[in-house]
Amino acid sequence: MKRFFNSILIIFSMYSHSGWSQEANLVTEDFKPSSVNQPEKQFPQVNSQGRVRASILAPNANKVQLDIGGVKYDMRKDANGIWTGESNPQDEGFHYYQLNIDGASVPDPGSLYFYGAGRWGSGIEIPAKDQEFYDLKNVSHGLVSENIYFSKLTNSFRRCFIYTPPGYNENPKTRYPVLYLQHGSFEDETGWSSQGKANLILDNLIASKEATPMIIVMDNGYAYKPQSKDSKEKKERPESVFEEVLITEVIPMIDTKFRTIANRENRAIAGLSMGANQTMRIMMNQLDTFSYYGGFSGTANYPSTEPIDTSSFLDGKYKEGAALNKKIKLFWLGLGTKEPVPFPKSVGAFKTMLDQQGIKYKYYESPETAHEWLTWRRCLYQFASQLFK
Amino acid sequence: MKRFFNSILIIFSMYSHSGWSQEANLVTEDFKPSSVNQPEKQFPQVNSQGRVRASILAPNANKVQLDIGGVKYDMRKDANGIWTGESNPQDEGFHYYQLNIDGASVPDPGSLYFYGAGRWGSGIEIPAKDQEFYDLKNVSHGLVSENIYFSKLTNSFRRCFIYTPPGYNENPKTRYPVLYLQHGSFEDETGWSSQGKANLILDNLIASKEATPMIIVMDNGYAYKPQSKDSKEKKERPESVFEEVLITEVIPMIDTKFRTIANRENRAIAGLSMGANQTMRIMMNQLDTFSYYGGFSGTANYPSTEPIDTSSFLDGKYKEGAALNKKIKLFWLGLGTKEPVPFPKSVGAFKTMLDQQGIKYKYYESPETAHEWLTWRRCLYQFASQLFK
Repeated sequence: MKRFFNSILIIFSMYSHSGWSQEANLVTEDFKPSSVNQPEKQFPQVNSQGRVRASILAPNANKVQLDIGGVKYDMRKDANGIWTGESNPQDEGFHYYQLNIDGASVPDPGSLYFYGAGRWGSGIEIPAKDQEFYDLKNVSHGLVSENIYFSKLTNSFRRCFIYTPPGYNENPKTRYPVLYLQHGSFEDETGWSSQGKANLILDNLIASKEATPMIIVMDNGYAYKPQSKDSKEKKERPESVFEEVLITEVIPMIDTKFRTIANRENRAIAGLSMGANQTMRIMMNQLDTFSYYGGFSGTANYPSTEPIDTSSFLDGKYKEGAALNKKIKLFWLGLGTKEPVPFPKSVGAFKTMLDQQGIKYKYYESPETAHEWLTWRRCLYQFASQLFK
Repeated sequence: MKRFFNSILIIFSMYSHSGWSQEANLVTEDFKPSSVNQPEKQFPQVNSQGRVRASILAPNANKVQLDIGGVKYDMRKDANGIWTGESNPQDEGFHYYQLNIDGASVPDPGSLYFYGAGRWGSGIEIPAKDQEFYDLKNVSHGLVSENIYFSKLTNSFRRCFIYTPPGYNENPKTRYPVLYLQHGSFEDETGWSSQGKANLILDNLIASKEATPMIIVMDNGYAYKPQSKDSKEKKERPESVFEEVLITEVIPMIDTKFRTIANRENRAIAGLSMGANQTMRIMMNQLDTFSYYGGFSGTANYPSTEPIDTSSFLDGKYKEGAALNKKIKLFWLGLGTKEPVPFPKSVGAFKTMLDQQGIKYKYYESPETAHEWLTWRRCLYQFASQLFK
C-alpha cells in the first residue's frame, strides 16, 4: 500500500500564539521512509526538517497520536480510516517513539523494534549530517556474537554480545585488546550493537586505520544477587553485583573464549549514562584490570551537581592525581550540548574536581545532541580511535 | 502493575449452540506469563489448556481483540480501562499473534517480537510436553554470530547468522561440518536462532552427545538479481538468485571465515516450507556440494498434490534412484500431523515418487502440530542427530 502526500502542504496552528513562527510550522513535503523501517514498510517517514510522519490504519479509533520526544501529536483520519500525523522537528539521530490509539501505547507496526526506555518498541532515525561514520559501507565487517552464559553470582542465565573485528577469524594467531562497553538505564545488552551501531562504527574506523582492531564486549548492566523469599516479600531492593559478575565471571570467560591480550594495558571500559557511572566506579576499584576509561554522558557523582569532596568521594580514590595519571592511559569524558538537567552541571562538577586534582582527561562535546544515541555513537567514534595506541 | 485473576472463573458462551461442549469452554484459572514476554511484563499469559490471555490498557477504545491462529477474540474492558480476553486452546509451541485496537493491527506491548508472517510482531509460547529438548539449560552454549556481507549478485548488503558449537573457540585446531539451514516464506534469517531455537537444540544435542558438533549457517532465502529501472516500472517479477548467492558467495565466505571441513561429506542443507523447497532444488543441482538433505514441511513439488512424473520433474533429476542413493547420505523428510492443505498430500505425492524410484529416505511426523515452529524445532532435533555420522 503506497500513499503519496507530495502535493499536500500542511500548516500547523497558523494562528498559534506560541513562539513558533508560521514559517517554522510549515511542513516540507520531502518525507522518506525511515532507514529503520520494517522491510517494505512505507511509514514512518522523516523529512528534511527532521519531522516524523506516522501513519496507521485504525478505522474505528476515536483518537490516534504520535508520541515522540515527550510530546503526543494528534494524527488525522482520512476517508479510508488511515490516520496520519507529523511531529515537530526532532534532533538528528535515533529516537524511541510509540503510537497511542485510544489511550493504548503500542509499537508502530511500521518500524523495527529496539530495547530502551524499559521496553521493546519503535525507533526512528533522523539522518545526521555526520552519519557517514556509522553508515553500513562496503568494508570488511566484524561479527557480533550472542554469548549465553550461566552466572553463579546471580544464579541466572545472562547474555553478552561480542564484537570481533574484521580479520579475527581469518588470522587465528592474532590476539586483540578488549573494550568492555556498557548501556544506560532502562536499556540492555542489545543496545550498543543495534541502535548504538558500535559494530559499524568500529568496522569503519578499522577500515580507515583510525582504530586499532579490538574486541568489544557488551554485557547487561543489571545483575543482582538472588534474593531470599523473605527479602522478596519485604520488597527489599536486590543487591547489585554487576562489578563482581564483570570481573570474576565475564572477563575470565572472554579471556578463555576469545583471543584477547589479557592484561590491563589492553583492556578498556566505557559506558553511557548509567554505564558511565558503573564503569567509572568499577575502574577505580580495578585499576589493575583496565587502563582506559570512557564516560559518555555520565560521571560517578551523578546525579549530584555539587562540588566534589575528594577526601570522601568514592572512598578517596581521586585524591592522588599524580598516581592516577601514571595508572590511567586515557580518561575520556563526552557529553551532548543539549543534554538536560542534571547532566551538564553534574559532569561539570566532576571535571572541576579532575582539574583541581591535576588528573589528565580528554573532554568531548557532541554538537546539538541530547541524552540520546547520536551523542553516544559520536562518543564511541571519538573514544575508540584513541584506544590501545 | 500486577493484576490477579485467581479467583475468577470465566465461562464463555454457556449457551453456545456450536460444537463446543460447556466443559471445553471453561477457562482454567492457572495462567502464567508467557516465556517470551518482555522483561517484567505480566501479560500475555498462557494457561494449562493452552489458552492465551492478553491484556492492554486502552481506556478510550471501542473494541479490542486478540488475534491469534486466524481468529479474532473479543476482549472485555474493566472499570480502569484495561481490556482482557482469552483465546481458545492453541496447539503447543510457538505462535505469531497480534492485538487489534479499533481496527488497528498492532504488536502486543507485552511480548517480545519475532519476524514472521511478513512482519516483526508478537509471539507466544504454549509450553510443550517435550520442550525439554529446546530448553535453555546449564550446558555449554555455542555462539550465534551476525555476519554482514555484501553480495555482488544482488548488489546489496545481506546478513546471515552462524551458530558455532560449544568449544569452537577453545579448540582452535578443530574443524567442523556445516549445516545450511533455511527459513520459510515471509520469514527471515533471524527465525531459526530466535523462535526456532536452533542454537539451544544443538547445544542440548551436543551436550548429550547425540549430535556431532557442527556449524549452522542461517541465511536469508530471499535474494534477487538487481532490476533495471525499466523492469521495475513494468513491475516485472525479479529473478531469484538465492542458489547462486549460496553456492558462489555464502559457502566460500563461510569456508574462509570459519573452520569448516569443506567437502560434500561434511555439508548438509535443510529448510522449512519454502526453505525445504529451495534446498531440495539446490541440492539436486549441487550433489557435489551437499550430501545430507532435510525437508521440513515442504517438498520440491509444492504446492502440487498430483502424482509426479520423474521424466520431467526437476529436469529428470529423480530418475536414477540407485545413483542418487549412492550420492545422498541422508534424505530426510518431516511433517506435522495437523498440517493444512496442501502439505499432507503434496508431501505424500513426493514420498510416493521416492518409493517408486527406490530412493531411500527417512520420514518423521511431528505429533499434533501444524505448519508452525514446534514442527520445525522437532524436525531439526531429529535431523541434526543423524548428521555427519
